[in-house]
Amino acid sequence: MSGPEYGGQSAAAGGAKPPSDRTRVKRLPDRGRYDRATVDAIIDAAVTGHVAWVADGQPYATPTLVWREGDRLYWHGSSASRMLRAIDGQPVCVTVTHLDGLVMARSGFNHSVNFRSAMVIGTAHLVTDDAEKDASLEALIDRLYPGRWPELRPMTPKERKATAVAWVDLAEASAKVRADVNHDDEGDETWPIWGGVIPVRTVLGDPEPDPFTPEGMPPPAVRLGD
Amino acid sequence: MSGPEYGGQSAAAGGAKPPSDRTRVKRLPDRGRYDRATVDAIIDAAVTGHVAWVADGQPYATPTLVWREGDRLYWHGSSASRMLRAIDGQPVCVTVTHLDGLVMARSGFNHSVNFRSAMVIGTAHLVTDDAEKDASLEALIDRLYPGRWPELRPMTPKERKATAVAWVDLAEASAKVRADVNHDDEGDETWPIWGGVIPVRTVLGDPEPDPFTPEGMPPPAVRLGD
Repeated sequence: MSGPEYGGQSAAAGGAKPPSDRTRVKRLPDRGRYDRATVDAIIDAAVTGHVAWVADGQPYATPTLVWREGDRLYWHGSSASRMLRAIDGQPVCVTVTHLDGLVMARSGFNHSVNFRSAMVIGTAHLVTDDAEKDASLEALIDRLYPGRWPELRPMTPKERKATAVAWVDLAEASAKVRADVNHDDEGDETWPIWGGVIPVRTVLGDPEPDPFTPEGMPPPAVRLGD
Repeated sequence: MSGPEYGGQSAAAGGAKPPSDRTRVKRLPDRGRYDRATVDAIIDAAVTGHVAWVADGQPYATPTLVWREGDRLYWHGSSASRMLRAIDGQPVCVTVTHLDGLVMARSGFNHSVNFRSAMVIGTAHLVTDDAEKDASLEALIDRLYPGRWPELRPMTPKERKATAVAWVDLAEASAKVRADVNHDDEGDETWPIWGGVIPVRTVLGDPEPDPFTPEGMPPPAVRLGD
C-alpha cells in the first residue's frame, strides 16, 4: 500500500521481474511481486476494484466489480455508463486491494497494515462480440456464484445490449504484498504498550432469502475470496 | 458502484444537490447522495481508499490509507513516494468503497451488490507545515486507534521528514449508495431459484500481540468502520 511505507521491512522476497518500468514497485521494492500466480491470486480473491481513467484531464477512480479470465481483467456496467463510453482504447489502471491486518508498533512511524494489492496498467477494450460478452458475464456470475449461471433466467437481447463489458490485458500487472508482524526500531520494543497485529477479514453474513425463494432451498455457494 | 447498474431500483431518495456537474451521479441518479453527512460517514468508515492520479498521460489507482479531518480527505506515505512527489497541485480523485452485500436475482442482469462509495475530486495538496503534519498523523492514528497517539514513542524529526501527507478538499464530493433487496423483473419471481441478499462485513480477527507486549495487556481499541 502506498500509505504507511514506514520502516522498510519486507514481507518476503519479490517474485519475477517487473514487466515494465511503470509497473515496477518503487517504494519498498521487496514488497513487489511480478509473477502472474501472485497477481492472479490477488485478483481472483477480489470482488471489487477501482478503475482509474481520465476525462478532460481529470482522473477518476471508479469502483466496480472485477473478475479475471486468463490474461484479461474484466469489469462491466451499463452501456450508458460515462466511464464505459469513454475508455475504449484509452489508458486505464485497475487496482484491487485487500486489507488483511492492522499492524501496531510502538511508534506511529512503524505502524503499518498487512495487505495484498494488484495493479494492472494498460489499454481498455470494450467487448463487442455478443458471444464473447455472454461468456464474460457468465464468468462474472460464476466467479461469485459457481454453478449459478445455467440456473438463471436466460439473458435477453435487450439486457445484453444494455450491458457493456471492458477488459485490460494483464501484461503490465504488478502486485504488492505485506504479510508480516510489526517491526519496532531497536530500543522501542520495551516501550510499555501493546504491539502486534490484528487481522482483518471480509466475511459473509446470514443469507436473507426473499419471499419468492422456495421454502427450505439453501442459498447458492458463494466464493467471496480466499 | 459502476458495475452492475442493472435494474434501476433506487435505494432511497438522493440527498442534497451535486456540488458540480462532474460529481453528479449520472447512472441511476437516485443512488447519488451529495449531503456532507452521508459523504463523511462513508469516508469515516473507510480504512483504505484509492487515489487516481496521472503521470505522463497514464492514470494510476493507488491504494492507500485515508482519513478525514473537517473538510479535508487525507492520505500519506513516504516522502520518496512517486505518487506523493507527483501530485502536489495536480487533479486527483480519491474514492472509498464498502461492499455491503451480494444481491442475487433470478436473472444475471438483476444481480447487484449493496455498497457505499464516496468519490472526492479536486486538487491534491501536500502538507508543508510541521505542526499541521503532526496533527494530521495524530488524526490518522486516532482514527484507527482512539487514544493511542499519546502513548506512542514520540515522532522524531527524521520520521516527520520521511513522511509526506496529502489532502484534497471535500468541496467536490459525492456518494453512491445501494442498500436494498433484490428486484426481479415481473414474471421472473417464480423462477425456482434462490433470490435474496447475502450481507458482507469486514471484521477483526483475534489480536496477535508480539513477545514484547506486557503480559495481560489488552489490545488497543480499534475503530475499523462504523
